[in-house]
This record gives sequence, C-alpha cells and structure tokens, in this order.
Amino acid sequence: MTLSRIYLEKKGKLKSVERALESVLTVANPLLSEASLDLLKAGGKRIRPLLTLLCAEYGDPKRKAVTDSAVMLELIHMASLVHDDVVDDSDLRRGKPTVKAQWNNRVAMFTGDFIFAKAIELISDVDNLDVHRSISRVIRDLSLGEIDQIKELYHWDQNLRTYLRRIKRKTALLMALSCQLGALSSGCSSEIGLKLYYFGYYLGMSYQITDDILDFIGSKKQLGKPAGGDLRNGNITLPTYFAINRYGLRNSIRKVLENKNPSHEQWDSVIRSIRASGAIRDSEQLSNAYLQKGIKLLEQLPQGKVTHALRVIADYIGTRDY
Amino acid sequence: MTLSRIYLEKKGKLKSVERALESVLTVANPLLSEASLDLLKAGGKRIRPLLTLLCAEYGDPKRKAVTDSAVMLELIHMASLVHDDVVDDSDLRRGKPTVKAQWNNRVAMFTGDFIFAKAIELISDVDNLDVHRSISRVIRDLSLGEIDQIKELYHWDQNLRTYLRRIKRKTALLMALSCQLGALSSGCSSEIGLKLYYFGYYLGMSYQITDDILDFIGSKKQLGKPAGGDLRNGNITLPTYFAINRYGLRNSIRKVLENKNPSHEQWDSVIRSIRASGAIRDSEQLSNAYLQKGIKLLEQLPQGKVTHALRVIADYIGTRDY
Repeated sequence: MTLSRIYLEKKGKLKSVERALESVLTVANPLLSEASLDLLKAGGKRIRPLLTLLCAEYGDPKRKAVTDSAVMLELIHMASLVHDDVVDDSDLRRGKPTVKAQWNNRVAMFTGDFIFAKAIELISDVDNLDVHRSISRVIRDLSLGEIDQIKELYHWDQNLRTYLRRIKRKTALLMALSCQLGALSSGCSSEIGLKLYYFGYYLGMSYQITDDILDFIGSKKQLGKPAGGDLRNGNITLPTYFAINRYGLRNSIRKVLENKNPSHEQWDSVIRSIRASGAIRDSEQLSNAYLQKGIKLLEQLPQGKVTHALRVIADYIGTRDY
Repeated sequence: MTLSRIYLEKKGKLKSVERALESVLTVANPLLSEASLDLLKAGGKRIRPLLTLLCAEYGDPKRKAVTDSAVMLELIHMASLVHDDVVDDSDLRRGKPTVKAQWNNRVAMFTGDFIFAKAIELISDVDNLDVHRSISRVIRDLSLGEIDQIKELYHWDQNLRTYLRRIKRKTALLMALSCQLGALSSGCSSEIGLKLYYFGYYLGMSYQITDDILDFIGSKKQLGKPAGGDLRNGNITLPTYFAINRYGLRNSIRKVLENKNPSHEQWDSVIRSIRASGAIRDSEQLSNAYLQKGIKLLEQLPQGKVTHALRVIADYIGTRDY
C-alpha cells in the first residue's frame, strides 16, 4: 500500500470532512467567511483528519461522531495556525499570504476565535467526559505552546527539553488526539485509544522535527521562502540546537542572533554552516528514533489493513522531503 | 436589602472565586502570569460570579460545580475583554492600560487564548451535556459579537436590530448563562434554569444599554477618558441611533463619522448635541423596558431572600450612574 492509495481509499470521507468544514465556516459575515474559507482552500495535507478516519476503522467508522471529531480537530488546528501567524509575525504559509498578512492582526484574531468557537460547538455534542478532558488539555497545551514560542524566541542557549516540550505542545499532542479520537469516536476500547494516542504522539514529534529540518534543507521553491526561516525569525529548532552544542557553531549563531540587524550574507553563511554540519543528520536520527517508537507500538494493535496503513504513514513521515 | 449587603453576604464565596481565579492564572511563564494577574487585579464588579452564586441558592449552593461555574464564566468574560481590546484598539479599560496597550497585540492574543483555554479546561469537568451546549453557544456568539463590533464600525446608518443583536452577543448572553449555570450547577430544575436564563438576558440587555448611555453622560473622571468614546471610535450605540433617527442629528453625525480627521471641537460639539437631545432619555426608557421584563420574570420564581436579592440587583442596574 502507498500513501496515495490510502488517500484514495479515504477520498470520499475526506471529502465529507471538507464539505463539513466549508459549511461550518460559511457564515453571514462576508469578511469572516472570506478569511475562513481562504484558509480552508489553502489546503494542507489534512493529515489529522486522515489519522482520525483511519484509526476509526479499529471500531465502527460509520458513526457520526467520527466525522465530527475529524472536523473538530482540523478546526482546532486551523484556529491555532491563524493565531500562530500573529504570534510569529508570519506573512506567508505554504507560499500564500496568511490571514494576518492579507488583512491584519485583528482580523486574524477574530477569525481564529471564531473557528475555535465552532470547534467548541462541535465538542459540546460529544457525550464522553474523558474525550472532553483530553480535548481541553490539548487546547490548553496548544495555548501554552503558542506562548513558549514567543518566550523562547532568540534564546540561543536553550536546552533540548525546552525544544521538545515546545514541539510536543505545538504539534505532537494534537496528532496524538487525532488518533485517539478516531478510536474513541468509533467505539474502540480506551486501551486501543491510548495506544493510538502514543502512536500519534511519536508520529507528531517526528513530523515536527522533520518540518524543522526541511526548513533548513528545503529549496526556496519548496518552502515558498528562503531556507532557515525559523532561525531568521529567532526560532531555535533542533538543527540549530545541535549545531550550537555539538558542532562548534555556538559563537557564529550567537553573533548573528544578538546582532540587531544582520546582513543577508551573515544569515546565509550561518545557515550554510548549519546545513554543512552534522546537525541535520543528528536531527534526522532523533526524528527517526521517535518514529521507531511509534512503529513499535503498532505491533500491539490488531494486525491488518488499518495497522498497515498507519505503518505506511509513519514510513512516509520518515522519508518525506517536503 | 441593599447591593452592598448582598456583596457582603457573598463576600466569603466571592473570595473563593477570586482565589480560584488567581490560582488558575498563576503559571510558570512570568509574562503570561503577569499579564493575566494584572487583569485580575484590575478587578471589576464581578457581577457574573455574583449572579451565579446568588442563583445557586435556589438549589444547593455548596456544590463544587457552583464555584467552578462562577470561575469559568469570569474567565470567559476576561478572555473576551482582552481580545475585545485588540479588536476595538482600546488602550484603557477602567482607567488602566489594557494588556494590548501595556504589552502588545500579540501578548493580548495569547493571554486571551490562554485564559480561554483554562475556561475550557474547567468546562470539561462538567458532566451535563446541556450545560456544555449552552456554554458553547454563548462562546460562539461572543466570537460573532466581536466580529460584528468591527464589521458595524462607522456604519452610521444601522438599524435598531443590528445594535440589539450586537449587545446581546457582547453582554446579555453571558449574563444569561451566569444565572442559568448558577441554577443548574446547584441542582435546580431546568425550568428554573431557563427562567433565570431569561432574567439574566434582560438584565444584561439593560446593563449594556446603560453602559452605552454612561459612555455619553459620564464625567471624564468616572470614565477614565473623554465622554463619547464609543462614537469617537466609530461604535454606533443606542443614543447615537436615536439621535440620528429621532432627533434630526443624522447629518451632523454622518459628517463627523465620514470625516477622515475631525477636530476635537467637531467631536465635542456632536457629542454635546446627542447629550442635549432626547436620545439619552429614549435609551433609558428602552433599558428600563428590558429591566421590567426581567423583574416580571422574578414573580415566577420561588419568593424569598434570593429572589429579593435579584430584584435589588435589577434595581441597581436601573439606577446606576457609573
């Protein structure tokens, strides 16, 4: 089985999710509708809904709660992206202008608030208290992650734990929840739910580390912006951490980060040295270590088509180059 | 019974609410803690928790869910204030600098997100699905109200329904919920809950109209800013609506609102004419009409100390001059 085959098999259900998202985000207010639907059309891999739909096959995937969960998770993800772009002051996402760039911070704020409120509305239909608790913990951690992101900006000398906590909050927990809710909304046992939660967690950690690596090694065309954008914005990710702590780049990175107005040449040179150091390989190793933990968990799940599909997704995340 | 007597009798419980708010908002992140606790210390009348605590006396006020509800409602209120200040571009609230003024829009955004996330966390402990639905509808409407506020800015020719919908979303629904949750969290029947919901709704409508009147007639000292601040920011409230539609001020108000950069004298003159017109009295009459509807509902509730206290609060809202 290939990843495109998996997407193909879930095409119908992913379309239902897409239609539901569109109907949730279509409101009387034209500005709000436009901002939200633009965001929707900007697309994305819909990896979270895909995980939910797949994991639901361990139970009864036809339950209405399954699609609702997938929609709700994607709404939370979208809302957090819109607010993140304000926090990170990002003008581009996937090469397209962000809500805050196309309009302004205020529009981004209320668009995020609205999308988030619609997610809350969907959650209120769930009649499982454990699910409510899981979701609300993830929401709290997402908001803490948003704050970490600012607080830890330009702290060039942070430790590994700080970075890992940040990507856990930013990415891994929502992926964990996407897998877990697929199981719970389709009526699986909470044991299966928990295993899938951890599978999603490890997958998410690996996914975000890969994202952070690609930000260094991707081409300008792939990234829609020059490489090293995270570092240029003061965001210290794993490759930078390793470059500082293992490959003697402490002083050059410190210098460029402490410089009020470094030149393009200074940035490019620092980013080139990080790419050329062992930091990228070390980051890939850590990403892979998380992935292997996730794959290991799959052994404890019922063997068959679904588990195989999750394995294919894990392999894709381990090898994706964009 | 007087209002101060009511506050005095609820002093202990309000203190518990205050302590719970403080503990919820105290987190490891110093900037976030500071912004949130500043907001807490800025105070306010805590009218929503007071209503919840009072309405809980129709049932068993000792239940833990009662304080939790009061805390949760105040958190939602606080989060919406922080985001509103960004949307309204307000630098002062109750004469003190707002979060967005003291720090910036980004800090205001994540502080609001965080406070809101903490509210969601508290909600997740509630095991009543109807309560979840009520809360999430109010959250959605609050976010829509935030958007109306921007969309309808400087629309000098709006109709009465637009204004009423805006203050319903902005203020009345959360007050309605504060009363209803007091009842439901203390184990009252849903009929009593519904009556209190409507009582809170009418009270809230009257409360916001009074706020909008005070913005015109309050002294600079009471308001912490010059009178007519709403209009100066393009926010068309009830007195302006009446001044345009009943007192022949259409052209002068239109002129000042369409002027890119009106002088202080132009503003002051328009605001003086609104104050001098019958628009203030007409607004007071509509505020009072809502209040009377609320008071009428109290007749359908068990007569005794609690109902009397709610009546005192209603009377206070009808006569408050700040």
